[in-house]
Amino acid sequence: MNNKFYLRLTELRKEHNISRSDLAQKLNVSVRLISYWENAKRECDFDMLLKISNFFSVSTDYLLGKDDY
Amino acid sequence: MNNKFYLRLTELRKEHNISRSDLAQKLNVSVRLISYWENAKRECDFDMLLKISNFFSVSTDYLLGKDDY
Repeated sequence: MNNKFYLRLTELRKEHNISRSDLAQKLNVSVRLISYWENAKRECDFDMLLKISNFFSVSTDYLLGKDDY
Repeated sequence: MNNKFYLRLTELRKEHNISRSDLAQKLNVSVRLISYWENAKRECDFDMLLKISNFFSVSTDYLLGKDDY
């Protein structure tokens, strides 16, 4: 895996001082799913990627770490 | 589904005059998988999304149709 989604998501959540539980509620998903994403065990689907990019006001390129490529 | 990946991929491929078969070869995936993506039956993973965005020199925001949101 080359993309940085797991890392960016964790960073953004902490920068915004949001707990996994809070984020789960905001995105309407389970806390377990947030954990899977942050531990790079799963990826979210594209609609959720867009939802997260809107929530944190960042581009999907940033969320995926495209700048590092 | 709100994202426009299936549409953008089809548009970009046609704009570049590349067949599904050629694109499959370039991306090292099966032609069937390209068909699934273009028919919105499946989504690719994030690494492949980045690979496609690099191949066509577009942002992942564009590939997902974020501008339309």
